[in-house]
Amino acid sequence: MHDDDTIAYFTERNSADVVIARMANAKNPRLAEVMRSMITHLHAVVKEVEPTYEEWEQAITFLTATGKMCDDKSQEWILLSDVLGVSMLVDAINTRRPSGATENTVLGPFHVDDVPERETGATISDDGKGEPLVVSGRVLDIDGKPIAGAVIDTWQASHDGFYDNQQPDVQPEHNLRGIFRTDAEGRFRYRTIKPCHYGIPDDGPVGKLLEGLNRGNVRPAHLHYIVRAPGYETVTTHIFVKGDPYLDQDAVFGVKESLIVDVDHHDDPAKAAALGVADPFWTVETDFVLTPAKSA
Amino acid sequence: MHDDDTIAYFTERNSADVVIARMANAKNPRLAEVMRSMITHLHAVVKEVEPTYEEWEQAITFLTATGKMCDDKSQEWILLSDVLGVSMLVDAINTRRPSGATENTVLGPFHVDDVPERETGATISDDGKGEPLVVSGRVLDIDGKPIAGAVIDTWQASHDGFYDNQQPDVQPEHNLRGIFRTDAEGRFRYRTIKPCHYGIPDDGPVGKLLEGLNRGNVRPAHLHYIVRAPGYETVTTHIFVKGDPYLDQDAVFGVKESLIVDVDHHDDPAKAAALGVADPFWTVETDFVLTPAKSA
Repeated sequence: MHDDDTIAYFTERNSADVVIARMANAKNPRLAEVMRSMITHLHAVVKEVEPTYEEWEQAITFLTATGKMCDDKSQEWILLSDVLGVSMLVDAINTRRPSGATENTVLGPFHVDDVPERETGATISDDGKGEPLVVSGRVLDIDGKPIAGAVIDTWQASHDGFYDNQQPDVQPEHNLRGIFRTDAEGRFRYRTIKPCHYGIPDDGPVGKLLEGLNRGNVRPAHLHYIVRAPGYETVTTHIFVKGDPYLDQDAVFGVKESLIVDVDHHDDPAKAAALGVADPFWTVETDFVLTPAKSA
Repeated sequence: MHDDDTIAYFTERNSADVVIARMANAKNPRLAEVMRSMITHLHAVVKEVEPTYEEWEQAITFLTATGKMCDDKSQEWILLSDVLGVSMLVDAINTRRPSGATENTVLGPFHVDDVPERETGATISDDGKGEPLVVSGRVLDIDGKPIAGAVIDTWQASHDGFYDNQQPDVQPEHNLRGIFRTDAEGRFRYRTIKPCHYGIPDDGPVGKLLEGLNRGNVRPAHLHYIVRAPGYETVTTHIFVKGDPYLDQDAVFGVKESLIVDVDHHDDPAKAAALGVADPFWTVETDFVLTPAKSA
């Protein structure tokens, strides 16, 4: 037994210190480090907010429901992390890059792994729905030198705002997904459709939270990319369509200034024919700038 | 559309501000106030801890499993709130009382409502297992005047460390539970057994967390009380047994200095017979001091 004078029992004043002191002999030092920060800030929140018992119960109910909502098809906790900006912050912290390099943004839940590679210039629109868009650009190193053989993994939502794996009975498998490879000059080119904004799921606790905060659930129009090349850090990012009305309201905070690109409208039957698209059509040209891999 | 210059897109630096700005038009201002504090501190945690993607995934997995663990019989989120000291902090904030008044502590998950009232001096040990204990005391106002007709609602774990509702097939219903009423001099008295320390559930994610932190799951021996009287603030509290080896290790931080009481051992057959208990036996004497109800 300790002398009573040396025991610090829990008080409103010392609360976080008492809880943290209990981890002094943690088996997992990193877990203790994370929990030290978490407990410090969690107690600060309670002291700032001074919740009533009823509010505490509401919080317990919300947190419980968020876990219950998770299944094979939806991950409500990731959605909560997304709408609170936590996913983007973790992404930002893990992908600090020098100025001029392509910035990262969130992967999102809709990437799939087993997508076939397609020929330069091919279309990824297997259902043919939407306004034609030709995407082209280069993959470069930070000094502006082309990277040949870089792999571009792209995916996007349909004209109606759904990914193929959200609508397995409606869209062909791998619709609006494709893997491309850069040529000797670092160039890539493919055909697709102009992306549209869409809403993230709002049928669970996160939807109710957004409703209470009068926040929308819309993501502005974007194309997803993972760009890989041996010896370079992999970039996971989007490009966003300049002028989209939801750019400043992205429900998951994925927009970065450097990722907003011009998407140009064309009415030019000859050029359309040359590119293999119907007229009128859209084009976007974007470069990806990679930094050396950290292990390199 | 806003002018691009006025749009603050998410960056590592401004992350919390951007998320908070999105709640400017919240329908529920209290929710926005709570979320403002929560988002500020949550982003501070992420910036302090700099989690890897893998650690973020571990957090998502833990939070999801904590919700999945909840059912009719167990509430893992309340357990997590308890072991992080949040339940005690919410309790402390909602029950600030003047010096001399009985302090609150956590209700815990084992209280039941429909317990019968028993006569002064009656036993609440319906299975007769454990070392006899006689509990007596008074209910007083803050000036030391007795409160007649105050209601004492008490419950405790068995000699084996389980509440009756954790062992419906082993213990009689309402074993070690009772409602008593103070006499004209504010006195109450009943018989029970000396409480033992016991472990909180450790079969879920919270148990794994405690394991990783090398923290025990034990609660020191205690008796639960809710004390009510018309015109006074209801007190929800425990008394703890002085000398219990787990007083400074309570898994839920419920111990307060003022709630630790002497439990005295007696070997006195005549006194035992007078009190209606087997010899040897234990006694504890404790007063509850109530403050005026806030609406009074």
